[in-house]
Amino acid sequence: MSNKASVAVVGASGYAGEELVRLLLSHPQAHLTAVTSRQYAGQTVAQVFPRFAHRAGAASLKFIEINPELLAKQAEVVFLALPHGVASQFAAPLLQAGCRVIDLSADFRLKDASVYKEFYGHDHSAPELLSRAVYGLPEIYREAIREALLVACPGCYPTSIVLPLAPLLQTRLIKPASIIANSLSGITGAGRKVEVDYLFAECNESMRPYGVPKHRHLSEIEQELSRAAGESVIIEFTPHLVPVNRGILTTLYVAPAEHFDDVVSMERVAKQIERAYQSAYGNEPFVRLLDGKALPDTKNVAGTNFIEIAWRLDSRTGRLLVMSAEDNLLKGTSGQAIQCFNLICGFDEIAGLI
Amino acid sequence: MSNKASVAVVGASGYAGEELVRLLLSHPQAHLTAVTSRQYAGQTVAQVFPRFAHRAGAASLKFIEINPELLAKQAEVVFLALPHGVASQFAAPLLQAGCRVIDLSADFRLKDASVYKEFYGHDHSAPELLSRAVYGLPEIYREAIREALLVACPGCYPTSIVLPLAPLLQTRLIKPASIIANSLSGITGAGRKVEVDYLFAECNESMRPYGVPKHRHLSEIEQELSRAAGESVIIEFTPHLVPVNRGILTTLYVAPAEHFDDVVSMERVAKQIERAYQSAYGNEPFVRLLDGKALPDTKNVAGTNFIEIAWRLDSRTGRLLVMSAEDNLLKGTSGQAIQCFNLICGFDEIAGLI
Amino acid sequence: MSNKASVAVVGASGYAGEELVRLLLSHPQAHLTAVTSRQYAGQTVAQVFPRFAHRAGAASLKFIEINPELLAKQAEVVFLALPHGVASQFAAPLLQAGCRVIDLSADFRLKDASVYKEFYGHDHSAPELLSRAVYGLPEIYREAIREALLVACPGCYPTSIVLPLAPLLQTRLIKPASIIANSLSGITGAGRKVEVDYLFAECNESMRPYGVPKHRHLSEIEQELSRAAGESVIIEFTPHLVPVNRGILTTLYVAPAEHFDDVVSMERVAKQIERAYQSAYGNEPFVRLLDGKALPDTKNVAGTNFIEIAWRLDSRTGRLLVMSAEDNLLKGTSGQAIQCFNLICGFDEIAGLI
Amino acid sequence: MSNKASVAVVGASGYAGEELVRLLLSHPQAHLTAVTSRQYAGQTVAQVFPRFAHRAGAASLKFIEINPELLAKQAEVVFLALPHGVASQFAAPLLQAGCRVIDLSADFRLKDASVYKEFYGHDHSAPELLSRAVYGLPEIYREAIREALLVACPGCYPTSIVLPLAPLLQTRLIKPASIIANSLSGITGAGRKVEVDYLFAECNESMRPYGVPKHRHLSEIEQELSRAAGESVIIEFTPHLVPVNRGILTTLYVAPAEHFDDVVSMERVAKQIERAYQSAYGNEPFVRLLDGKALPDTKNVAGTNFIEIAWRLDSRTGRLLVMSAEDNLLKGTSGQAIQCFNLICGFDEIAGLI
Repeated sequence: MSNKASVAVVGASGYAGEELVRLLLSHPQAHLTAVTSRQYAGQTVAQVFPRFAHRAGAASLKFIEINPELLAKQAEVVFLALPHGVASQFAAPLLQAGCRVIDLSADFRLKDASVYKEFYGHDHSAPELLSRAVYGLPEIYREAIREALLVACPGCYPTSIVLPLAPLLQTRLIKPASIIANSLSGITGAGRKVEVDYLFAECNESMRPYGVPKHRHLSEIEQELSRAAGESVIIEFTPHLVPVNRGILTTLYVAPAEHFDDVVSMERVAKQIERAYQSAYGNEPFVRLLDGKALPDTKNVAGTNFIEIAWRLDSRTGRLLVMSAEDNLLKGTSGQAIQCFNLICGFDEIAGLI
Repeated sequence: MSNKASVAVVGASGYAGEELVRLLLSHPQAHLTAVTSRQYAGQTVAQVFPRFAHRAGAASLKFIEINPELLAKQAEVVFLALPHGVASQFAAPLLQAGCRVIDLSADFRLKDASVYKEFYGHDHSAPELLSRAVYGLPEIYREAIREALLVACPGCYPTSIVLPLAPLLQTRLIKPASIIANSLSGITGAGRKVEVDYLFAECNESMRPYGVPKHRHLSEIEQELSRAAGESVIIEFTPHLVPVNRGILTTLYVAPAEHFDDVVSMERVAKQIERAYQSAYGNEPFVRLLDGKALPDTKNVAGTNFIEIAWRLDSRTGRLLVMSAEDNLLKGTSGQAIQCFNLICGFDEIAGLI
Repeated sequence: MSNKASVAVVGASGYAGEELVRLLLSHPQAHLTAVTSRQYAGQTVAQVFPRFAHRAGAASLKFIEINPELLAKQAEVVFLALPHGVASQFAAPLLQAGCRVIDLSADFRLKDASVYKEFYGHDHSAPELLSRAVYGLPEIYREAIREALLVACPGCYPTSIVLPLAPLLQTRLIKPASIIANSLSGITGAGRKVEVDYLFAECNESMRPYGVPKHRHLSEIEQELSRAAGESVIIEFTPHLVPVNRGILTTLYVAPAEHFDDVVSMERVAKQIERAYQSAYGNEPFVRLLDGKALPDTKNVAGTNFIEIAWRLDSRTGRLLVMSAEDNLLKGTSGQAIQCFNLICGFDEIAGLI
Repeated sequence: MSNKASVAVVGASGYAGEELVRLLLSHPQAHLTAVTSRQYAGQTVAQVFPRFAHRAGAASLKFIEINPELLAKQAEVVFLALPHGVASQFAAPLLQAGCRVIDLSADFRLKDASVYKEFYGHDHSAPELLSRAVYGLPEIYREAIREALLVACPGCYPTSIVLPLAPLLQTRLIKPASIIANSLSGITGAGRKVEVDYLFAECNESMRPYGVPKHRHLSEIEQELSRAAGESVIIEFTPHLVPVNRGILTTLYVAPAEHFDDVVSMERVAKQIERAYQSAYGNEPFVRLLDGKALPDTKNVAGTNFIEIAWRLDSRTGRLLVMSAEDNLLKGTSGQAIQCFNLICGFDEIAGLI
């Protein structure tokens, strides 16, 4: 591609879509040519999102209704920020019309249509595309993403769990069956859903688990952990809602493959873990491996595309704790989508994200 | 005792002390005769805590400096809401002077002075009192509390972990070595500490773990779980700070003692758990066992002395999840202290708490 | 009436209705016999409001559909917590059936049906009742409320504005045309409305004015200020939304009737104001006149039926500032309704509220 | 100057200093060569501010102690982010050493040392510099700032008040004596002060006025309004604390100079106001004049250097309401300082700010 790509965002009225629009309006190599939303059709981006009103183009770009043929003429790359089950209906016509598609929904994340049905409760509407989609986690699938016509961006929880665990599973440093993932999410994680549960006074001064024990994201988390482990992995996963706008904080409990019971063996295990992380992420632009006493804090990554990772061996229990923090709308969703966009277009991977 | 008890609160300037004062001012059978605070000495309760200004006595009761002899003349029961390490210096003289003492600090929770030293970093200043103190968890030590001269009220995290697990350990339904406790706390849990970490803008829009992997509260949690299990128990415990004023939400991951791998065995395990909880807490005035689809939510217990408990068997992993929610300043601290006070005085256990 | 009254709450699914239910369940002289809600019909109070599950009656009392005849048999006093325009349809049949009615909507607050139409945009459905309704502000209409068959409880903003200003207008200490009221409200003030504007992430980290320059509550504010002043009063009123659950903080700017330009005249004006407030509210059970350096803070009244009032003369501008703080759901709505209920029934005015 | 300037930040441990460091690390034409902080001396920027750890230079740049001579060798422009009263001690040596100085404190904002003493309670330590300082409000003093050796950046409240009012005063469209300013501030406005009042649990769920009726910022607000009006202006100003991290929302009440009492006269006044704003700010890069039904909302400017302004004529009272929203740490402090820096250096005014 040239050094600038024309792009469209389909379904730009939710939080993920809004964040995409924000990132694309300030991306030095993106030219946002179309945004769609049934609800906002006819209004300008500046009117719907006053906080971007100053961005070049925001005052003139108007929301339109979805029209795949039209979009294909306007954009080389199309981002789909539609609800699960809806995105899959638009991917095929857009691909056929020659667009490259970056999908933010769950529709193309799973390789197996029967797993999709098990977790999402209905048949997949375009199962033939599943094998063509590349899972959009650049730290793991960077080369495949570069060539992908269809990218399935990971969910926010999966990113916060798969990135910290993949290096440990690939190097067989932990026992896959031991994995427990406890996640806390800010309220934008629920999307801009107009439901009582997400009203201010229902969330503020509240902390609560939900979706236990079988949250939908388990399907893609386990798919990716299994791939990293080279064997089938089943994990425990418990999401919680916490009254912040943005952020996911995940605490992972795992059993190291090698037992340690004294200072020497503990140090050996620690070195292996340190090496695994350095080797996997030492040069990654958006992974921040914390050292010293630092622990992840969502306020240190909010508004950025970074994920923070720290770990501790517990000499009392023999377990390994791994903790991660990310912004659910950036590294967890739209920032990661831009990372994929940069790869697809042959741009610097950090363009528009630093 | 008569149907009204004179009481004093020592160290009433922190959040726990403030909450105690609030509860005692409206308690139908308590007569608050003294409150101490070096910082506020000379000011009235109404001036220091404007929100209680309307309570009878708030306008006339003045903060004084600590004076054990004087307190012993004014109060039959003395609450100590002092920092760890300070409380133990005042308990002995107060007991000697004939008061009954309810301590909210960690000073008398541990039976073993060497464990105290391991976790708190200094020698215990009154180790001879440790064996005389009763752990103030009414659901477990009700009868002993009635007779106690010295009550050591549990910490907020321990209450949220020990109450959900004790019935399962006592009935040997779970494997003690499997226990993992993930807790979220509101910011008042840190006390009214004037440190950068607890400033509004450092906590708001932040989620973070801290004190891993060896938080001080582990000492009393493990002591009490070991007692319930009849064997030594070591657990994993990870506390997190979340931007709410009040509440603790704990998610527990444990392995059932009996393996289940089909509907029948799962149902059998479920019934045993249900029975254990009903038997332990079916008649408890402040334990709310949730049924149906309900999950704990701190907003449903904030401002009350209740703890909510719910559990789920995960058929995919074979684990048991138990979740609890409490108000860290009420069931987690001062409300529980009042429960103990009621027991000590022979009052209705719920007096002043409903 | 006897020393216990049977009561019903109609429309108990909003925040005001929920708060009423909470207060009535713990009121020593109320017997809650019926609660209605189309949405929750068939469920128990304990199921819908888990936080009250421990209250006597909460587990057995079921929500029903509205049926005035049936309600009249079950309750001596009926609270209407319905939307504006709906309440007025149920008042007449309930009154006819012999109930006393306490309405929390705006439907009976105005004396003039044409003002109602001007501000609410449609004709009043029961104008004949307007003259029979008593405005439920006990500090001003105490005696009339005792005898009222129909009480129109004030809005939350009006309470926070009328109470601080009425004594000054009655004593002619301020110029009516100078009044400017700036109010900040917590998000429950909008009710449990399922609209995008009240989602957590739209309110959190946001401060915004709304409804300027002609908010509906102006109609009753000006009616009551005019009554106090003995002349027609028009004021400036600007409400703002602020990310807290509860509370209204009002800052009032007024010109004293008497000019002051030196220490002596300023002191004279100050004494008159002090006297007016002491005379009006010195013995009021729920008005807290702050002295010394104290200024109102909503956290000091949240969860209580109190209103805090403080004032300052500004020697530089010659203006008087008056500030008030209240809990919008208690003194601003449901707590005040209970105060009226106590008056109607001849109970102690503070019953169930302290 | 060249197309890149070397800069230093003195006192970089508070919120304003932190924000400056963030902006300068990503500024395309700034080269941050030194940051000072007694508290953090010896640590790197990446360690102290983990959220900037990825910025070029953050890992190597270490905090040092203040040393004016050394700083003068390292930086062409020095930002002072020190407490009031401290900044003035460092300006003179830095200026003498040839640096240009941008001060964020209140020390050089006032032209009159006696007004400084009246409001700040002590003599000014470098009164001879007051006449040399330029008030750093680019929309008003752009040309003077370009040439300034010493810039005194405005306070956060003054910016939110002076910008909306200056065009109206300059065109004599409003009566100066009528001005009332009601401001709401996020908690970072208090700085990173470790005091009880700013602890999370003291601010969360709280709304409160403070500093009435004579806040220190009045001195510079009135100085600048007087300059705009061409006559001495005294205003009413009431700040409030609200539980958000960032933002100032100001609501202004003023009397138009021309009376309006019908549709025609009101429209005429409206047109004059519209013209005054368009003429003053129509081309300003950081002033967003809202149109249609839009009202300012701090969430739309948080994280940006924009100020939103909207206004309404109230036909009922004859008053004009003007509302503004800004990020207190950006347009209110550090963003504005960067705007001044760009002017001083001859860079594009928006460099590093969009």
